[in-house]
Amino acid sequence: MYSFNNDYSEGAHPRILQAMMEANLEQNQGYGLDSHCDTARSLIKNAIAMEDVDIHFIPGGTQTNLLAIAAALRPWQAVIATTLGHINVHETGAIEATGHKVIAMPAPDGKLKPQDVEEAVARHTDEHMVQPKMVYISNSTEIGTQYTKAELQALSRVCRQKGLYLFLDGARLSSALTSSVNDLTMAGIASFTDLFYIGGTKAGALMGEALVIVNPSLKEDFRYMIKQRGAMMAKGWLLGIQFETLFQDDLYFQLASHANAMADILRQGIGDLGFSFYSDSQTNQIFPIFSDRLIERLSQSYVFSIQERYDDSHSVIRLVTSWATKEEECHGFVNALKALCP
Amino acid sequence: MYSFNNDYSEGAHPRILQAMMEANLEQNQGYGLDSHCDTARSLIKNAIAMEDVDIHFIPGGTQTNLLAIAAALRPWQAVIATTLGHINVHETGAIEATGHKVIAMPAPDGKLKPQDVEEAVARHTDEHMVQPKMVYISNSTEIGTQYTKAELQALSRVCRQKGLYLFLDGARLSSALTSSVNDLTMAGIASFTDLFYIGGTKAGALMGEALVIVNPSLKEDFRYMIKQRGAMMAKGWLLGIQFETLFQDDLYFQLASHANAMADILRQGIGDLGFSFYSDSQTNQIFPIFSDRLIERLSQSYVFSIQERYDDSHSVIRLVTSWATKEEECHGFVNALKALCP
Amino acid sequence: MYSFNNDYSEGAHPRILQAMMEANLEQNQGYGLDSHCDTARSLIKNAIAMEDVDIHFIPGGTQTNLLAIAAALRPWQAVIATTLGHINVHETGAIEATGHKVIAMPAPDGKLKPQDVEEAVARHTDEHMVQPKMVYISNSTEIGTQYTKAELQALSRVCRQKGLYLFLDGARLSSALTSSVNDLTMAGIASFTDLFYIGGTKAGALMGEALVIVNPSLKEDFRYMIKQRGAMMAKGWLLGIQFETLFQDDLYFQLASHANAMADILRQGIGDLGFSFYSDSQTNQIFPIFSDRLIERLSQSYVFSIQERYDDSHSVIRLVTSWATKEEECHGFVNALKALCP
Amino acid sequence: MYSFNNDYSEGAHPRILQAMMEANLEQNQGYGLDSHCDTARSLIKNAIAMEDVDIHFIPGGTQTNLLAIAAALRPWQAVIATTLGHINVHETGAIEATGHKVIAMPAPDGKLKPQDVEEAVARHTDEHMVQPKMVYISNSTEIGTQYTKAELQALSRVCRQKGLYLFLDGARLSSALTSSVNDLTMAGIASFTDLFYIGGTKAGALMGEALVIVNPSLKEDFRYMIKQRGAMMAKGWLLGIQFETLFQDDLYFQLASHANAMADILRQGIGDLGFSFYSDSQTNQIFPIFSDRLIERLSQSYVFSIQERYDDSHSVIRLVTSWATKEEECHGFVNALKALCP
Repeated sequence: MYSFNNDYSEGAHPRILQAMMEANLEQNQGYGLDSHCDTARSLIKNAIAMEDVDIHFIPGGTQTNLLAIAAALRPWQAVIATTLGHINVHETGAIEATGHKVIAMPAPDGKLKPQDVEEAVARHTDEHMVQPKMVYISNSTEIGTQYTKAELQALSRVCRQKGLYLFLDGARLSSALTSSVNDLTMAGIASFTDLFYIGGTKAGALMGEALVIVNPSLKEDFRYMIKQRGAMMAKGWLLGIQFETLFQDDLYFQLASHANAMADILRQGIGDLGFSFYSDSQTNQIFPIFSDRLIERLSQSYVFSIQERYDDSHSVIRLVTSWATKEEECHGFVNALKALCP
Repeated sequence: MYSFNNDYSEGAHPRILQAMMEANLEQNQGYGLDSHCDTARSLIKNAIAMEDVDIHFIPGGTQTNLLAIAAALRPWQAVIATTLGHINVHETGAIEATGHKVIAMPAPDGKLKPQDVEEAVARHTDEHMVQPKMVYISNSTEIGTQYTKAELQALSRVCRQKGLYLFLDGARLSSALTSSVNDLTMAGIASFTDLFYIGGTKAGALMGEALVIVNPSLKEDFRYMIKQRGAMMAKGWLLGIQFETLFQDDLYFQLASHANAMADILRQGIGDLGFSFYSDSQTNQIFPIFSDRLIERLSQSYVFSIQERYDDSHSVIRLVTSWATKEEECHGFVNALKALCP
Repeated sequence: MYSFNNDYSEGAHPRILQAMMEANLEQNQGYGLDSHCDTARSLIKNAIAMEDVDIHFIPGGTQTNLLAIAAALRPWQAVIATTLGHINVHETGAIEATGHKVIAMPAPDGKLKPQDVEEAVARHTDEHMVQPKMVYISNSTEIGTQYTKAELQALSRVCRQKGLYLFLDGARLSSALTSSVNDLTMAGIASFTDLFYIGGTKAGALMGEALVIVNPSLKEDFRYMIKQRGAMMAKGWLLGIQFETLFQDDLYFQLASHANAMADILRQGIGDLGFSFYSDSQTNQIFPIFSDRLIERLSQSYVFSIQERYDDSHSVIRLVTSWATKEEECHGFVNALKALCP
Repeated sequence: MYSFNNDYSEGAHPRILQAMMEANLEQNQGYGLDSHCDTARSLIKNAIAMEDVDIHFIPGGTQTNLLAIAAALRPWQAVIATTLGHINVHETGAIEATGHKVIAMPAPDGKLKPQDVEEAVARHTDEHMVQPKMVYISNSTEIGTQYTKAELQALSRVCRQKGLYLFLDGARLSSALTSSVNDLTMAGIASFTDLFYIGGTKAGALMGEALVIVNPSLKEDFRYMIKQRGAMMAKGWLLGIQFETLFQDDLYFQLASHANAMADILRQGIGDLGFSFYSDSQTNQIFPIFSDRLIERLSQSYVFSIQERYDDSHSVIRLVTSWATKEEECHGFVNALKALCP
């Protein structure tokens, strides 16, 4: 059995483990106030070409989302997301548990449009309804699609016009930024958003996300929020070391390029066999549509998840690659598929 | 100017004020533990033909909804409602502010269907998503429609099969139960739901809703919840007196019958002029579709709200009648409309 | 049986009921946007000699406290109160239910001192602890004592030095301001605090508190908060009418003067019989110390509450007077006590 | 500079890192559903001699506390702790942020007594106050003291009598259980409590706590709570591997024994020089009282924290040892101190 179930089935890139080993007996200050975190912050600031930002390392993505959103909003304010948005579906109501409504807008391709934002704002007219104050997007999205520079810029513009914060969930940012169709940079992400995070967990780290707060009004006292929600790691330098390693020698992007190349093999091979896809993904998640019978057969050798039912006899499956995915397994999958096709 | 803006534009029925005057210098125990509340509870138990229920008098509807829902759910559980549901739209995120997600299902006629419940449950499969545990409906609904006995029974059945609580918001229950097409009774409401409330504010009281908890597992310690959220009125007998009055001599239903009769005049008159309606409402809220020009002209003499835009040149308006609506004003509106039609 | 149990055992002053009767069939706008509320706001602005404040009418005291505190604080911030503070003891954790810690400082006389504030601030040094951001006091206090002008001014000064909001719970403000030892005015209260409320429920209204927001930074969007927590009364003019009446012809202060005069009779009579008191209260709540045997005998004719055990054979009781307390009943209590003394 | 600042200044025991390295390229299921977590659960069940418990691995201590408490309590319920309790002081109001009050009882030696519990329960009499429902203790305590078997048993008994859950924070459980004066076992801890956690972060792991839920009524749906609050680690096997390693060959207790032995050297040496201690700690945290001048001098070579001011010229400092503390540094500290003494 080989797993294409997700991009967090293996540990960390060996260079990360190596760095941890080397620092293991150092005595470091706790809670993210150590020199590894400082170095990692400097490297990230270089990567985004922006100095005046606050960077916090948070163990996980759901935590990062809930911290960023709950710290930014006043009690009656809400966040706009797509119906597929990770915060709307797959975080067990983490945002609502902080007291805030998620306003969900349909987005068949996974990408929020400026008119969705305008519509959500237009619908909420007075104090009898929540007050939209933030827009949440993911890049790459939950269905593997990705924002172009023009799309992100347009979203950013409407957010600024409407007085909304724009928050980008970058759990899979590296895959988006290294995809063949990408025209965005890290610096672009930073300039178009009020805050965003650079995913580590799904990009080669053991765990950890780097939250970058660009908008000065969102910076104050953020460490209180981290601590209160249990997200301030005692041995915080473990997160620092990981981002320090990822942002040296472009490792972060190299790992994502590998993941994307592996997805390309799958996408190309599956497409060549005549199958179609649920979304136009050019990143490390692909969503082919297979017959239930085919899915059953593939399941005997491969682990993957069912995204959703497509019709009476077909379903959409999700295949995910990562820094650790083996090329021969991708070819193996395509060959196995070919062998199962009539 | 005459207002059809809502059913809470006037004070209380004179008999209620009279009862308050008479009791004004009594010394009563506070917090709903007085004899007026006790009498009101007895009268309501008679009306629903059920003895073993807990009844709490709460000043307002949003409070009642948030208390009922937040007390029943564990932190990760969610409530299913229609997209039009009062808790989903018009309570400023009151439910989310208690930590719970509202799962909104489209319902063009304002009524939740068993298959909506089944679909919502089916979609939430594991601990990465919220756990649906309650269904919230309004009768009459937010767009004036009402549940039949068969519909409510079917909803009740699916809730019990799926282990969900069924909560009915009865802000306008009296209008529903006295409408010409109704086949439900108070006793039926009580038997099909786990908890529901009998609206006072929109039915002739100064303020106040009677929350009836039928399901024994939801009763314990509910007064703690009321107090904690600021809904335990010091002079609680004021609520008791109002329900005591409403449930004597069927006043509660007489007032609603009047409101419905007034809506009938409007509906009949507007329909006779060839206008159509946004929903098939037989209760005290009606939703005619008028041209924007007509709406502008009517606005010079009448107060009402715009429900939503219908097309480029038409909108849906909402007309609401109450125990206090004057018959001559309803005829006046129809005549005014007639005069404005070519 | 006559009750000295609290100051909310009767309804409202007859002039208030009369005003409600007269306005009963008016069609008013809902949610506190009506002309009665506007007039009441003007009258209160006159009374505090300040124009640039926001005034909201809230049905009850616990609600007012939780709204004021939760709207002012960011998630990790806390409010400082005395251990006896109403929010610390008698609101079922209403403040914690909004997510905020109450930092309780001992205050034997019920009054918070500047050094208590300084100590609380000094103890909370970094992001591993909550951040004190507000001071909550009651005037008169929970044990009937009251702040002098010098005391309130000193508290105000330390709050401003430390960047803390000062919030005054005025559930019994009128009794404090009309007591024989008072040297504060309504205008003084407004000038020393960031926000405070003027109690109605315990001062002759059916229900209602007037929250005055003085600090401009606390004003924005407050109506969203009111609505979200279920405190925006549909028939909001009912609160407006009550404060409109209370602030005409000084009725608000006349009623409190009566309550205080009644307490004076009790205090004088009880003191003359040689009993001592738990606190030096000059307001409408007094706390004599009686033997348990005496308490038992008095309980046969009077309703009152036990504040706390004093020693093995004595307890502190609480006697409360109000606008409705009858003079002959006060004399009657003193005579009954005299008759029970050897 | 050598740091005695805390027990989380270094990484993990080398055997833990080694195990992580070995498993690095395994494909594991996420979210704690892997075989390493299963093995770790079995080993812990052996260690506590109890099969029918639920065990969850949580990244950090504040998270574990807030999850355990918020999942167990209904909205109006509160948890009793000492005033020094970690949840009362050092978690930035994490418990209040979940909506629950911490009822703080003074405990000069850091240990909660049965009479404290009884008093807290006795004080909370009705729905106007929070309802105590859980007792939180730490072993070892925040000031290094530890519960005897008799003490824990007595606390357990009063909790069961009063219907309270007993929750033990074992962030430093291994140090308590290996201290020279201990008479408790892991099995004893499990039998006296409703839930408790076995600390990893301060005991040789990179991060991680093992929450053991003994009381069946607290088990249901706990994974929803973990996910909702952002505490469900994607690569959950990283926690499993660490506890798997710690609970093989008694490594967990060996590491704590080392930490305790290092503290013994410090305690003995400091005591021999005539200094006294703030608490009678026999665990890995000690609290000597030094003059401010001495503290200043020691600070030039050692890192430690100031616990609190003792008098005008003295303070209490905290020295903490761990699995990684070097024996020669302990002797070095004692020698340095000796050299500074006249």
